[in-house]
Amino acid sequence: MVNCIRLNSVLRAGGRALSTTAGKKQRPLVAETADQHHVTRNNFSDVQRVRHEQAKHSVLIGCPAKINENKFLKYLSQYGEVASHFFFDSNGTHAVVEFVDLQSINSFLAGTKIPSDEDVFVVPYKSRYIRLKTTEVGQQFPKCWPQFCIPMNSLVEKLCGAESIEDQAHLLLDDLQLTEESIRLRYLVSSLISDIATAYFPEASVHLYGSSVNSFGKMGCDLDLFLNLEDIKGYRSGKMTSAYSTEFWMRRVSSGRTAQQKILSVIGECIDSFGPGCNEVQKILNARCPLVRFIHQSSGLQCDLTADNKIALRSSELLYIYGNLDHRVRALVFALRSWARVHGITSSIPGHWITNFSLTMMVLFFLQKRTPPVIPTLDQLKNLAGKKEKSIIDGNDCTFVKDLNKIRQTANKEPLDSLLIEFLEYYGKFDFKTSCIDIRKGVEKNKPEAAALYIQNPFEQKLNISKNVNQSSLQRFVNLAQESAYILQDQGGRPSKKGKPWGLASILLPASADKGTSPKRKKKVSASERIGSLLESLKDNDDTGKAQPGH
Amino acid sequence: MVNCIRLNSVLRAGGRALSTTAGKKQRPLVAETADQHHVTRNNFSDVQRVRHEQAKHSVLIGCPAKINENKFLKYLSQYGEVASHFFFDSNGTHAVVEFVDLQSINSFLAGTKIPSDEDVFVVPYKSRYIRLKTTEVGQQFPKCWPQFCIPMNSLVEKLCGAESIEDQAHLLLDDLQLTEESIRLRYLVSSLISDIATAYFPEASVHLYGSSVNSFGKMGCDLDLFLNLEDIKGYRSGKMTSAYSTEFWMRRVSSGRTAQQKILSVIGECIDSFGPGCNEVQKILNARCPLVRFIHQSSGLQCDLTADNKIALRSSELLYIYGNLDHRVRALVFALRSWARVHGITSSIPGHWITNFSLTMMVLFFLQKRTPPVIPTLDQLKNLAGKKEKSIIDGNDCTFVKDLNKIRQTANKEPLDSLLIEFLEYYGKFDFKTSCIDIRKGVEKNKPEAAALYIQNPFEQKLNISKNVNQSSLQRFVNLAQESAYILQDQGGRPSKKGKPWGLASILLPASADKGTSPKRKKKVSASERIGSLLESLKDNDDTGKAQPGH
Repeated sequence: MVNCIRLNSVLRAGGRALSTTAGKKQRPLVAETADQHHVTRNNFSDVQRVRHEQAKHSVLIGCPAKINENKFLKYLSQYGEVASHFFFDSNGTHAVVEFVDLQSINSFLAGTKIPSDEDVFVVPYKSRYIRLKTTEVGQQFPKCWPQFCIPMNSLVEKLCGAESIEDQAHLLLDDLQLTEESIRLRYLVSSLISDIATAYFPEASVHLYGSSVNSFGKMGCDLDLFLNLEDIKGYRSGKMTSAYSTEFWMRRVSSGRTAQQKILSVIGECIDSFGPGCNEVQKILNARCPLVRFIHQSSGLQCDLTADNKIALRSSELLYIYGNLDHRVRALVFALRSWARVHGITSSIPGHWITNFSLTMMVLFFLQKRTPPVIPTLDQLKNLAGKKEKSIIDGNDCTFVKDLNKIRQTANKEPLDSLLIEFLEYYGKFDFKTSCIDIRKGVEKNKPEAAALYIQNPFEQKLNISKNVNQSSLQRFVNLAQESAYILQDQGGRPSKKGKPWGLASILLPASADKGTSPKRKKKVSASERIGSLLESLKDNDDTGKAQPGH
Repeated sequence: MVNCIRLNSVLRAGGRALSTTAGKKQRPLVAETADQHHVTRNNFSDVQRVRHEQAKHSVLIGCPAKINENKFLKYLSQYGEVASHFFFDSNGTHAVVEFVDLQSINSFLAGTKIPSDEDVFVVPYKSRYIRLKTTEVGQQFPKCWPQFCIPMNSLVEKLCGAESIEDQAHLLLDDLQLTEESIRLRYLVSSLISDIATAYFPEASVHLYGSSVNSFGKMGCDLDLFLNLEDIKGYRSGKMTSAYSTEFWMRRVSSGRTAQQKILSVIGECIDSFGPGCNEVQKILNARCPLVRFIHQSSGLQCDLTADNKIALRSSELLYIYGNLDHRVRALVFALRSWARVHGITSSIPGHWITNFSLTMMVLFFLQKRTPPVIPTLDQLKNLAGKKEKSIIDGNDCTFVKDLNKIRQTANKEPLDSLLIEFLEYYGKFDFKTSCIDIRKGVEKNKPEAAALYIQNPFEQKLNISKNVNQSSLQRFVNLAQESAYILQDQGGRPSKKGKPWGLASILLPASADKGTSPKRKKKVSASERIGSLLESLKDNDDTGKAQPGH
């Protein structure tokens, strides 16, 4: 039995505490999540471990819209001590409830019925997704924590009231970044999916990767999961002590990829047939990285489950480290991602646009190029790594230090305001024609091959992560950077007269010129449309951002 | 941890011992299986329980063709005491090895590798089906226990050397009935399939039913399995002690049948993708009783897995009781089934032929009609049942006594020889036009509806189990019965001159007149052909024998 309080204290000792609200009085979780500097010194793997444990101690409960929160908690406490809970609203009111002890989950499930109303037929797969029924008429709606971003126009309005561009950037970060509740919900969904995916492979594990964990995730972003089958190990004999040995009789297939496809196909069937609260299941098994996509309706999350994607997990950890090295990194990335999205420079629709991942690499490269640098190069992080941190995946060196405390703080003190303007100016006149961006060395290099935009993949160094970008998309980015730099310089970094957008807000307003040319996302793109365009893009180009999901 | 020796001793106390060969010296299992009277007094459910336990303690091992048995056993014994083992040959040499303790299985599996040869890719599903590798060159082939019947012409030759028709019938029974090894293998295959089928439904269980367990199974007969999902129970509250209650959030479907189809579909995918040694998987989900059919290649068994088939399980138990009440029952049924099969009266191809199940009902009915009766009627068995044995399934009364010791032995002493002839005479002049066969009452009744042959379903009493039979099939049966009765009477029940078939052997030779009209099974009917004809027959007729599999 794992006690979450103890686990959390491990992290608390190392830096910012992961919120746990054991005890009688439930405190809102979110208050603890954001500290002044938006950074943590906890190791990526430690955070993952604690989050996974929290999720295993948690249940997802569908509730009536009105509920007496105190009575609800009293009801739950008969099964054990509740460590934390919160409500959210997504296709109905739901609660995430974390128990202190695993045993309490078992008691709770043992006290749970199978739906047995007349004329109700179910697929009797038991999970930790529960429906609460009550004969009591609730008096009030519980406080529901949001799971999606506030609309951009509300955000812009909010930013106008800030004191400085730096304040604006931090306000934006606070509003867009994943909240504590959202992170908990993501790990819980991952844990529920893991129960399904590992039924046949008890040694396998499901990891979150990509934006959910790389510290650059925006509220409502997709949930990228991968099933690590490499944890499945058989006995490895040293010396042969006998003339006999045994091996499992296993289904032989033509390649590791075929095995992944078979496994994902079956898991897709299971999620489709049993997965409580899952729908729109799509098997995209012929993609470069085969995946099963589905909507976890109760959380509102679109989930992509792949089998094995270890480089992507390393990539997520690298971004996590960069995001937590200095408070300006995430603030700048979030501001520039919003800026690029508003103007149609990036898009969630796969195509010839710059991806969020590429844009983030450009920000990191820019920060490496400052004097003194705000963040170290990947090679510097590699040199800080100990022997045990050596990591070679599929022949690619993915080594870097994992302990944030081993990385020296930067001497660079440039304010966010000027970094933002400098970024826009830097790329407004960058020599994209001949130069290549490489965060491993932190210096411009000659492009190894023709491409409008060449950003070297930090791990698979022979790949260009922005191979999909065409010249016109790049040119629009350059023009916009120049234009936005001009707007900000013109304002002199001070709030303008009341009500009129200024600073960051002023460059987050779509210009009328953007119209018609931008790949604006429709308010609601149906899953089938998204699949269609994804497949289309995979045909065109093997290296779009989406074909390397979730870096 | 369950000790099989203890379990077996439970059964041994009740009658014939289930073979267990714990101890250093391995004895052949088959020697213990056949006692003089071919009957047991053990309850059906006790036998099932012990067999399931044996299977859980067992592993299936693919071996080199030549192997040193002593060294093999010595190798295995490092993991724990071996309770029993035997070899068989089906798509390569295999061994079934039963360990005394469950823990030994875990040790054995922990010492087993995942195939890791270069260029070998596998779906890493771990089961108890293991491949033994050895660097040693084996000197001899191990004794392999047969899993299939000897050919009919060899059997006929053997029967000619017997002393009496009774001896012939028992010889035939010994050669055709399931051996101890075959039964163990069937339970082991069921156990391996159960591991797959219950991965998502840990409370569910897989039962064998039909010929594998009803005491009338012939070597090589299909393995009928059903997944009992009704064991999945949630908490059932008595009085509401709280205004709150919880239920599992489960996928809702339009009917119980739809739930079964969804579950079987997923299990079919799993067996197809992971199932070690399984192939030719066919989902036949639109049949009256949805099923997944596949070949378990390593045992050579064709398996039919249905979801829920409780009446069929009761039917199997009823046949088991009848088969073990008196030694003449199974001997007579086996003899008559062989007789009918040779002459094309029955067939494994669904169609207008009499099924084995119908023929068995005719034998039971005949034995109930003797004076004094050889076996009791179903109503008599029902009246012997205790309160706890009451069983209503889908509104059908399936109650009967389960303790064989509560059923009084018959006073009827008629020899098998005369029972065989009397059977042929009885049905040679039976009034099929107006009468209906009913083993529940044990008396002829007027047919409730038109049908060439009307045999009342003992449990679903409004159904005719031989609705599929047409007039010409019935007429061929009647003619053949008359003809065979004449042949036997003519011989006077004594061995004829040397070499010439006599007695049972003489009626097991296909007459030239059979040619062309009989539904003879091709030597090898492909799975797709079988499926084709099955589907065809389901379209024609909803009540063929195969649509009620495995009674």
